Amino acid sequence: MAQNKSDSLSAPVSQRLSEYLLILEHLKSQGQDVVSSRVLADSYGNNASQVRHDLFQIESTGSRSHGYDCKNLSEAIRSALNLEGEKRLCVIGMGNLGRAIATHVPFQNYGMKLSATFDIDPTIIGRKFGQITVSPSSSLEATIRDKKITMAALCVPAEKSQSSCDLLIKMGVKGILNYSRMRLKVPKHVYVQDEQIICSFLQLSYKTSL
Amino acid sequence: MAQNKSDSLSAPVSQRLSEYLLILEHLKSQGQDVVSSRVLADSYGNNASQVRHDLFQIESTGSRSHGYDCKNLSEAIRSALNLEGEKRLCVIGMGNLGRAIATHVPFQNYGMKLSATFDIDPTIIGRKFGQITVSPSSSLEATIRDKKITMAALCVPAEKSQSSCDLLIKMGVKGILNYSRMRLKVPKHVYVQDEQIICSFLQLSYKTSL
Repeated sequence: MAQNKSDSLSAPVSQRLSEYLLILEHLKSQGQDVVSSRVLADSYGNNASQVRHDLFQIESTGSRSHGYDCKNLSEAIRSALNLEGEKRLCVIGMGNLGRAIATHVPFQNYGMKLSATFDIDPTIIGRKFGQITVSPSSSLEATIRDKKITMAALCVPAEKSQSSCDLLIKMGVKGILNYSRMRLKVPKHVYVQDEQIICSFLQLSYKTSL
Repeated sequence: MAQNKSDSLSAPVSQRLSEYLLILEHLKSQGQDVVSSRVLADSYGNNASQVRHDLFQIESTGSRSHGYDCKNLSEAIRSALNLEGEKRLCVIGMGNLGRAIATHVPFQNYGMKLSATFDIDPTIIGRKFGQITVSPSSSLEATIRDKKITMAALCVPAEKSQSSCDLLIKMGVKGILNYSRMRLKVPKHVYVQDEQIICSFLQLSYKTSL
């Protein structure tokens, strides 16, 4: 029996569902209405059986024999990933990576809103990246409280990451994407996801070496 | 029986091994010599049984009952991922993301060398990010050939990505990390890995919504 949607999906499953969603949206944009588990698996890089198993965990209207309806399946994944509403986030540290995130990531298509960006450097404060003007880190507490920000991308140097993290948690942030190369200590109710760009290159290096 | 190392690891397995490697190196840097599959699983976000199954696929000197030796296991993963030698790579498109990659990613620790960066913008060409001065895109073919570059990170706008990709492949590049939001058409001998930063935020959004 399919799991109830209110049950929590494991991290690997929700991660794969995110990737399937992007593949489905690409297929839809190319005019494709129906997709098989095999095609999804080929695009993602796993196997059809795992795709079916993952999709079985959400309330999907697809059928295995005829393939999945791209639109319905996208909506089912969006619903399973709780992408409704508008979750507010901020970026801490507006160096190159922070700027790339603020400028290029299409948050608004996925129920998120970039509400603030912060830096300590006076030459960066006041500049605009994407839609947002960089605020001074000194205004972080008030801004997070006033704008009801619940998520943050941490793009600060390693030596600043734990103190920034502590401040975010104090102000009620519940989820942190950690791009600094330091592992963070957080209380149990806070979710931290470590993002290390080198991992993608390790994978590339391996596949290219075969 | 453990798979022979020369066999190809699946994309999800090699990806998890990359993440385990970074976790192990962090533990070593903290002075920890031995690690259980449970601790590795908790750090990664899966379960101990999958960790053991993944590690069983490489030649590991670990023992389940006493835990894995961090140093030996790191070396076994490095060997399984073919991280020996020096694979040369380039970054195409030196906007914010290209700069972040050139500046912050520790390639040299993982058998890779960033050998060139390229852009078409005359105001960016000649500037230095990390150790490398940005070259004009017009020199791409000669540089890739002369420096024997086999991998590339593609950080160009969507409308430039297929033509850049075609040129890279013509010059012998075998692996491409695609940060553009366009899916690429490539011949079978070329490995493309799509990287979409939004996926990390979808995962964060989901976990924060629970």
